[in-house]
Amino acid sequence: MSSSPRVQPAPLTGLKRYLPADHSSVVFDGGFWQGWSETVRNVTIPTQHKRLEEEGFLEVLDFDRPAGPLVRPIQPSGLSMQHFFDSDFGKWIEAASYTLKAHPNAEIEAKIDDIVAKLEQGQMADGYLNSWFIRREPEKRWTNLRDLHEMYSMGHLLEGAVAYYEATGKGRFLDVMIRAVDHIIDTFGREPGKLRGYDAHEEIELALVKLYRVTRDPRHLKLATYFVDERGQMPSYYDEEARNRGEDPQDYVYKTYAYSQAHLPVREQQQVVGHAVRAMYLFSAMVDLAVENGDPVLKEACERLYDNLVGRQLYVTGGLGPSASNEGFTREFDLPNETAYAETCAAVALGFWSHRMAQIDLNSKFTDRLETVLFNGALSGISRDGEHYFYENVLESHGQHRRWKWHYCPCCPTNIARFITSLGQYFYSTKDSELAVHLYGTNSAELMIGDTFVRLKQETQYPWDGDIRLQLALEQPSHFTLHLRIPGWCRSAEILVNGMAVDLGACVTNGYAAITREWRNGDEVRISLSMPVDRIYAHPAVSEDGGRVALRRGPVVYCVEETDLGGEPQRLRLPATSEISARYDAGLLGGAAVLEGTALEAEDAGWENALYRTAPPALKKRPFKAIPYHLWANREAGAMAIWLQES
Amino acid sequence: MSSSPRVQPAPLTGLKRYLPADHSSVVFDGGFWQGWSETVRNVTIPTQHKRLEEEGFLEVLDFDRPAGPLVRPIQPSGLSMQHFFDSDFGKWIEAASYTLKAHPNAEIEAKIDDIVAKLEQGQMADGYLNSWFIRREPEKRWTNLRDLHEMYSMGHLLEGAVAYYEATGKGRFLDVMIRAVDHIIDTFGREPGKLRGYDAHEEIELALVKLYRVTRDPRHLKLATYFVDERGQMPSYYDEEARNRGEDPQDYVYKTYAYSQAHLPVREQQQVVGHAVRAMYLFSAMVDLAVENGDPVLKEACERLYDNLVGRQLYVTGGLGPSASNEGFTREFDLPNETAYAETCAAVALGFWSHRMAQIDLNSKFTDRLETVLFNGALSGISRDGEHYFYENVLESHGQHRRWKWHYCPCCPTNIARFITSLGQYFYSTKDSELAVHLYGTNSAELMIGDTFVRLKQETQYPWDGDIRLQLALEQPSHFTLHLRIPGWCRSAEILVNGMAVDLGACVTNGYAAITREWRNGDEVRISLSMPVDRIYAHPAVSEDGGRVALRRGPVVYCVEETDLGGEPQRLRLPATSEISARYDAGLLGGAAVLEGTALEAEDAGWENALYRTAPPALKKRPFKAIPYHLWANREAGAMAIWLQES
Repeated sequence: MSSSPRVQPAPLTGLKRYLPADHSSVVFDGGFWQGWSETVRNVTIPTQHKRLEEEGFLEVLDFDRPAGPLVRPIQPSGLSMQHFFDSDFGKWIEAASYTLKAHPNAEIEAKIDDIVAKLEQGQMADGYLNSWFIRREPEKRWTNLRDLHEMYSMGHLLEGAVAYYEATGKGRFLDVMIRAVDHIIDTFGREPGKLRGYDAHEEIELALVKLYRVTRDPRHLKLATYFVDERGQMPSYYDEEARNRGEDPQDYVYKTYAYSQAHLPVREQQQVVGHAVRAMYLFSAMVDLAVENGDPVLKEACERLYDNLVGRQLYVTGGLGPSASNEGFTREFDLPNETAYAETCAAVALGFWSHRMAQIDLNSKFTDRLETVLFNGALSGISRDGEHYFYENVLESHGQHRRWKWHYCPCCPTNIARFITSLGQYFYSTKDSELAVHLYGTNSAELMIGDTFVRLKQETQYPWDGDIRLQLALEQPSHFTLHLRIPGWCRSAEILVNGMAVDLGACVTNGYAAITREWRNGDEVRISLSMPVDRIYAHPAVSEDGGRVALRRGPVVYCVEETDLGGEPQRLRLPATSEISARYDAGLLGGAAVLEGTALEAEDAGWENALYRTAPPALKKRPFKAIPYHLWANREAGAMAIWLQES
Repeated sequence: MSSSPRVQPAPLTGLKRYLPADHSSVVFDGGFWQGWSETVRNVTIPTQHKRLEEEGFLEVLDFDRPAGPLVRPIQPSGLSMQHFFDSDFGKWIEAASYTLKAHPNAEIEAKIDDIVAKLEQGQMADGYLNSWFIRREPEKRWTNLRDLHEMYSMGHLLEGAVAYYEATGKGRFLDVMIRAVDHIIDTFGREPGKLRGYDAHEEIELALVKLYRVTRDPRHLKLATYFVDERGQMPSYYDEEARNRGEDPQDYVYKTYAYSQAHLPVREQQQVVGHAVRAMYLFSAMVDLAVENGDPVLKEACERLYDNLVGRQLYVTGGLGPSASNEGFTREFDLPNETAYAETCAAVALGFWSHRMAQIDLNSKFTDRLETVLFNGALSGISRDGEHYFYENVLESHGQHRRWKWHYCPCCPTNIARFITSLGQYFYSTKDSELAVHLYGTNSAELMIGDTFVRLKQETQYPWDGDIRLQLALEQPSHFTLHLRIPGWCRSAEILVNGMAVDLGACVTNGYAAITREWRNGDEVRISLSMPVDRIYAHPAVSEDGGRVALRRGPVVYCVEETDLGGEPQRLRLPATSEISARYDAGLLGGAAVLEGTALEAEDAGWENALYRTAPPALKKRPFKAIPYHLWANREAGAMAIWLQES
């Protein structure tokens, strides 16, 4: 095989978009993300490989040996978690690859090469590649797209292959996956003799666009477009497929194809429904296809669905998908706290979607949510030590929730890992003579704005402090527009360019300040985002949060933990008028701003043996401390609450 | 076979208890329960038989024909709901039988006789009787007491047989069941060669005591005693049984035998745990055995567990078992409202347990809970039309809950039916020269107090009004103690005997006023229970109810329904000082007292497109009406709440 992928140039016919920075050219050399980046690179990536090995995930690639006993039993849907082990090491390869360019690591590379060699060995002559079906049920391949995640797994391998190729230039994995994609092209589509199917668990669609952006092979884009356009067409392929298996389509475990966003053609969908991760992967692919195909109707569908999500179905943490039963959405405004499913993967994938939206329309409504998941509902999915995880990111606990080292269905650990190892791309993007700064946090970046090479140094204690200093280094003066995001949470911002105040009233559009000028070497921009403690209230239709208040400072949502309070935070009542102050606590889990104030607490006294009575409980004053939600469950286990009763 | 059961006299060695009235000698000839009794007798009983027929429940008895396809699939536990169809018609026979003495019905009797004939025909030569195992898996009988409800089903058949015998004097069904019990006696016990097992779903224990109270055969009492004493002994029989099936006991779906109250010997249990219905049936049997065996340690365990339940784990409605995942208990004070499981069967069975406790110790703490389930968490399980049901009795809804005509697992309909058709027994009980009046509601009763025959007429609008008039008719004057329950909810009561006030301070013990005198024909007792609208607060540890208030008047818990409010009651905030008045509404579902007042409602205005913001919602005044919780979901579907936010 050739050692580099077959690259075919294709015309760019799509919408113009901002191009995200190359993540490896953004170095977190201080501040908030330095610690997290190092932990994920040095602890998370190696320990995840260890888990994949010791838990038997990699054993599925030992094609020379007969398949051993199942390590994950078959579920009522017919799916075993083992059906999609490929996706887990696919995502691990992707996450690990993102670290390799800036931090070469021969050991990690050898582990990836070993997996790639096995995948290549196992790949069937026609290009088919899925370890479960090759080894256990070759006769059943392509017989159940509704339940068995066949292309979902392939999609994650494909994303891994693209990332590994981009990191190392090695083309073997990508070649293997291009052959697999060729096989899928031969098998699926509207042409006579092909199956008109599409995988119920979206993922391959966005992976194919990633592939297309490397290969520029129009067949790759066409396949992704076909999968998205075919989705939800009636009569449903899943009905036909079920009948072909001798099953009654009515017996479908999840009852409705809305579970997989396959109840309606995607352009007609008005509400975000079904399995949350699937939805986010689909919508991410839809943005990509709107861009590549220049498809305004698809873009409009994305905007409509985005507004539905953030206006009616999103937790204050950026978590999404309240229900465990479908791992997803229920009714609008249904946002229970203690039973929140709010899967880490879904929050990460909302980051993917939000980021893509912002590259078409520079609008802080998208990047605000990217930032929300980054500092809250996604980051909460990984422990401060980098090797313990949450799958569900509840907003309230009575102490029953514990981070785990590995999971029955460990999709989340590699997802949060690939998010953090590729974080640089989310900070900046460029288009012609424009540079957009989406996120704040100390880093040093190297960027091309048109033909201009710019070094950008960002220095800040963000998110613990709202003062940010940007320094530009250019070889020669250059005229371009610097877009600076003014976060939606910020009610008072100030920007100085070389000490001169910028008139924000005149230059802010959709939450971005546009500063167009001739930029010179040494130019300094100072951004000051006022960061008081905010009391947050939820829409009256969110009945779980009625009469409750959440605390947020800057982009960080806070919670009260039992280990600090010495009691259950559910008993607190925060007077509407009480003062709450912020203080940086260097000793707290690597350092964080904490909030402190005094609340009232409902007392046990007088309730001996009474579960109900006609007098309300007495209240006494109690000082409390709140910590960033993403840091919860890193110390002694106990109760936790974000939404506190207000009195 | 003989047409009457083998009755063997046995010495009464147990604790002295009050004897409940014969339910058929208490006639609800007016007031609250008249309508319900008639509906259940005339609508519920016949329609339930119809459902059993049309849904294939009775087909399992057609032993002449090969078993048809499963109408209920096998669950992950190995159990199909079909395994215990016997229990459903067993309970139906019991419920129907309770109506037959006062209201003979040849058609119903013929239907029962038909079932009995089939059971007799199918019964195996050794007495074994369970339609699933006889017809489908005879080789598997007695191989999985942990999961398959074998004796649970037999227990319900046995209760049905006792009730049918007592109603009609026909002994055929009882004979069949006595043979089945003989077979169980031959199979289980501590004697060499017997299996040391006991069914994980308790039920047969209390059924065996019912049988014993008819037969006085000490072997029947001994078997019940064995089952209760053996429960939770280690090493567990279920471990051994699983290994005998070639299974790993660790693979048990429910993980812990606490699910079946089999984690510890019953006398050592401190906390009510596991499946709620199982727990209630077990504890009911434990009271029965404490009585029959004169076992103070068992009685003490019952008291301890009762206090745990009512002090830490009971909904304000009398519902119990908050979690669907184990159909039971979780941690103490975990009482979520919208996801409450609170199965109808569990509330009914708490009635059974409470009633039994009160027959040993006349204490209103027991009868208060019997009354609570009667007017709230059990009665809510049946619709006003008598043919629609709830399985879960949630305390809050967003409109997703609907009553159904029949269920995947229809254990509840027959349970609430047998509760109401035998209601008379819960009203009165007697012991030597004592008569206890436990419940209030219009009825005419005939009772024996020692050798004295008394006709008692109770007239009242209770529970809509707290004034009750009792009239006694005696052939000759008789000296006895009349115990009148002063409900725990009542803070001001008055009793007049023939117009003369009784000094309650001197005569009330444990919530019962004892009036000892020579009673004469025509004596009149007037009881006046003050019945203001009560605001109820929950213990501070019940975090779901923090800052919330429930409305109760007398024994009736109220709720606000969307159909009355024109909006979601979850948005209401009830000012702590607002007035709430009661009014009898004759037009509401057969007539009921409703509550009316004015609350504040959180407004949508200003929340366009915002899910979160830094200002709380504006509040505007809104009049509201609350209706008795047991009547909810009988009109237009919509949201409902018991616990309202207080402001």
